[in-house]
Amino acid sequence: MTVTKNNLTVKEISASEIAALVKGELAGNGGSLVSGFSGIKEAKKDELTFLANPKYESLLSETQAGVILVPRQTVCPGKTVIRVDNPSLCFTEMVKHFLKDAPDYRPQGIHPTAVIGAKARLAADAAVGPHAIIENGAVIGKGSVIHAQCYVGHDAHLGEHCLLYPQVVVREKVFLGDRVIVHSGTVIGSDGYGYVPVDGRHMKIPQIGTVHIENDVEIGANVTIDRARFDKTIIGEGTKIDNLVQIAHNVVIGKHCLVIAQSGIAGSTRLGNHVILAAQSGLVGHIEIGDGAVVAAQSGVTHSINPGDQVFGSPAHPIKDAYRTQAHVQRLDKYVDMIKDLKKRVEKLEK
Amino acid sequence: MTVTKNNLTVKEISASEIAALVKGELAGNGGSLVSGFSGIKEAKKDELTFLANPKYESLLSETQAGVILVPRQTVCPGKTVIRVDNPSLCFTEMVKHFLKDAPDYRPQGIHPTAVIGAKARLAADAAVGPHAIIENGAVIGKGSVIHAQCYVGHDAHLGEHCLLYPQVVVREKVFLGDRVIVHSGTVIGSDGYGYVPVDGRHMKIPQIGTVHIENDVEIGANVTIDRARFDKTIIGEGTKIDNLVQIAHNVVIGKHCLVIAQSGIAGSTRLGNHVILAAQSGLVGHIEIGDGAVVAAQSGVTHSINPGDQVFGSPAHPIKDAYRTQAHVQRLDKYVDMIKDLKKRVEKLEK
Amino acid sequence: MTVTKNNLTVKEISASEIAALVKGELAGNGGSLVSGFSGIKEAKKDELTFLANPKYESLLSETQAGVILVPRQTVCPGKTVIRVDNPSLCFTEMVKHFLKDAPDYRPQGIHPTAVIGAKARLAADAAVGPHAIIENGAVIGKGSVIHAQCYVGHDAHLGEHCLLYPQVVVREKVFLGDRVIVHSGTVIGSDGYGYVPVDGRHMKIPQIGTVHIENDVEIGANVTIDRARFDKTIIGEGTKIDNLVQIAHNVVIGKHCLVIAQSGIAGSTRLGNHVILAAQSGLVGHIEIGDGAVVAAQSGVTHSINPGDQVFGSPAHPIKDAYRTQAHVQRLDKYVDMIKDLKKRVEKLEK
Repeated sequence: MTVTKNNLTVKEISASEIAALVKGELAGNGGSLVSGFSGIKEAKKDELTFLANPKYESLLSETQAGVILVPRQTVCPGKTVIRVDNPSLCFTEMVKHFLKDAPDYRPQGIHPTAVIGAKARLAADAAVGPHAIIENGAVIGKGSVIHAQCYVGHDAHLGEHCLLYPQVVVREKVFLGDRVIVHSGTVIGSDGYGYVPVDGRHMKIPQIGTVHIENDVEIGANVTIDRARFDKTIIGEGTKIDNLVQIAHNVVIGKHCLVIAQSGIAGSTRLGNHVILAAQSGLVGHIEIGDGAVVAAQSGVTHSINPGDQVFGSPAHPIKDAYRTQAHVQRLDKYVDMIKDLKKRVEKLEK
Repeated sequence: MTVTKNNLTVKEISASEIAALVKGELAGNGGSLVSGFSGIKEAKKDELTFLANPKYESLLSETQAGVILVPRQTVCPGKTVIRVDNPSLCFTEMVKHFLKDAPDYRPQGIHPTAVIGAKARLAADAAVGPHAIIENGAVIGKGSVIHAQCYVGHDAHLGEHCLLYPQVVVREKVFLGDRVIVHSGTVIGSDGYGYVPVDGRHMKIPQIGTVHIENDVEIGANVTIDRARFDKTIIGEGTKIDNLVQIAHNVVIGKHCLVIAQSGIAGSTRLGNHVILAAQSGLVGHIEIGDGAVVAAQSGVTHSINPGDQVFGSPAHPIKDAYRTQAHVQRLDKYVDMIKDLKKRVEKLEK
Repeated sequence: MTVTKNNLTVKEISASEIAALVKGELAGNGGSLVSGFSGIKEAKKDELTFLANPKYESLLSETQAGVILVPRQTVCPGKTVIRVDNPSLCFTEMVKHFLKDAPDYRPQGIHPTAVIGAKARLAADAAVGPHAIIENGAVIGKGSVIHAQCYVGHDAHLGEHCLLYPQVVVREKVFLGDRVIVHSGTVIGSDGYGYVPVDGRHMKIPQIGTVHIENDVEIGANVTIDRARFDKTIIGEGTKIDNLVQIAHNVVIGKHCLVIAQSGIAGSTRLGNHVILAAQSGLVGHIEIGDGAVVAAQSGVTHSINPGDQVFGSPAHPIKDAYRTQAHVQRLDKYVDMIKDLKKRVEKLEK
């Protein structure tokens, strides 16, 4: 069944129907209806969510979600839950179920106004929108969709089921793995910023390397990712990059990182896996950020960070120190009064 | 009459001519010539300005403007003023007068290389430049101008007299009201940045909402505005957004706000009316910024702000506190010396 | 001879061959092979570098470079050096030598899908890629290359040997000198951000000036440079601008400056020559930055800066003061303990 919500037609599905689809055991109100899905903390009452890890069972009592997919043994009075073997897998299936009849705005086939180089190789089912350009030597894998007005340069490679939204630029020789999504206005493979001072002028150092984007990466709008000087700028599998992010030449980002809007990473810096850079943060060049490290918003990181460490501030310090320092700074008024008071009392004692 | 200024041909007009056009009463030098216009603080001697509010009459003696439109009773010896009933309205009329013969670089009609979906609906007088794309279901209102190489997605809506400069992307279903201006490279309606962690990977949460831009909004170059998850990202009437700004999914911006260059607003945050975000400021998600609040440049706002409040710093604090704290921080050298001196004196007293 | 390095075919050349090409005097291992080039601090052992100024001779012992071009009298035991009259000139020649057989991905001639205004004037050897647009009155100088999908507006001017990568926007009347390089997604000549408050609304001040880019400027990807109100926004000769930088209307940047990624310069601010703005820094409007000044990363500059000064922080202070202040801030914990301890001791003394 569908309902109209915010002028959008969305599907509605009951807890009982979900239980049947995922072959789960229902507890609670089988008539509970959901029309969307979300993480357990953000979910509203018309949304489906899931709990993968029994460690976080306390979230069950707090969530607003209308229906929750939970591990087999979970008990949760007062909530509508569906017990399954693998809640996260079932959740993924339900997301696909919700979207399978969504309108499809993707181009079909090769638009006659697209310019395809004679030596480009496109999979039979690849789609290329109007005014898009695929240069000679480029390879477009099975099921990939290149929207209108994109540019795919010479010898670039897109794997299977990639999706480029309108007006993406993929420069020559850049490599994208499978299922890579790139949003509009993003430039992959622009020249790195490299100059040598010669007689008071800046002489350009040619940037003849490339960019390598692994599988399942998503890149937001108006992002810039520079090609390496000789080697490769690398974005690891499953990493998600938000809008207006700058990634300089020779940067290496690990797997499943989150790089939030307007962050910037200077040349040759390396991130491990599962690193989080919050919005508007900046990293100097030639440092290493360990696995699972977190950089708070607007922070400026000038040194390497150990795995799991969290930092904040410009310049960035370990988050606990930074918070304590911040607290002191906010109380400076009081401390200054204390100093002045002590001075008077010492003067009196000296007399 | 026209003059050449910086290789531009601009009109020149005398105070007497202006007085006649706006039916005002001239005082001062009727032969005073102006060839441009500006705010009262910035205006130079060859420019026209206006004073709307008698409260700011003190600015009259300071302005460099050659001619000033003022309220009826205003007395201002030594300046060339024109007394009118409504100075701001007259000023607006004069701006239009100045520009009415400016060269017109807009495309005319529908360029033969534009790709217009069979089911798109364009007003008879809408203009579409070369290589622009209007997808099926899109609506383009009366007098709207779509410059070269723009992309207007399926079921998108542009009201009357909108102006898209070259290479703007308006994704599917996005709504623009009347007289909306969008500069080159800007992307409206890219997917919000939303993922659910599933087994150590980030699973994409589909973003099936849209963006709603009200009347008289202007958006700078290379801005990114993400579509909402289910609902709408909203930019209120008359709000002006500068270049390279990031607006995340589900953000709601009120009317007549100013969002200056390189600022960023995280998901679901709401701004009231007449809010000012100065350059490079950042707002975390899920907070509320009251009417008329001001966020200083490079500030990082982590909590909601009351109407009219001004904040500064990263993290941001009320501006007076932030300035006082800054002053203390700059004097830390002195305070540290005081502490060390006190320590010595206390030690001496203890002996 | 060529070698394959990171899947790239690069030329390899021996120290003896270089010495012959530059007519220099070889000392050290003539068989030493290099396949790239770099600055003296960054160079690796398979790279050529140079030392222009005998003042920095100490760097010779530290560099990893395989071959070094040095001034005539230089002695450097244990290194392979080539003594020449003008090391920087010889280095430049060698860079050209390395690249002269690099694959050429530039468009040739005028692509049939390009839209060229009847009154545009293109040099006979200018190249224009597919779906690019050159409006009426635009001038494209000798040897200039306009890649696919670029937009060059009415009466814009590109000098000789300019290079626009795909999807650059050069708005009407903008002027580019010779050998200007612009990367994808960059917008030159968007309207400045200027409004006058009229009855609680923001009335647009038309921006009818332009942008003037001098010779040998390089501009990164997704940069925005606004046109002046009446006059010119100016980027001086040899200045290099990184990705995602914002340059507001009426800014004047001097010669040979470096403006690093995500920096922003507000309206009417003027930079001298050889200024460096590090990443994510911001400058308020209407200030002057003296020749050779350096602004550290993430700094926010609110006042004019004298020639040669270095500043850091938000708000920015002279770098030595800022570092000392930072050090104090990081030690606040200790100082607070000292204050509390002193208080107790004073209380004890008072008893």
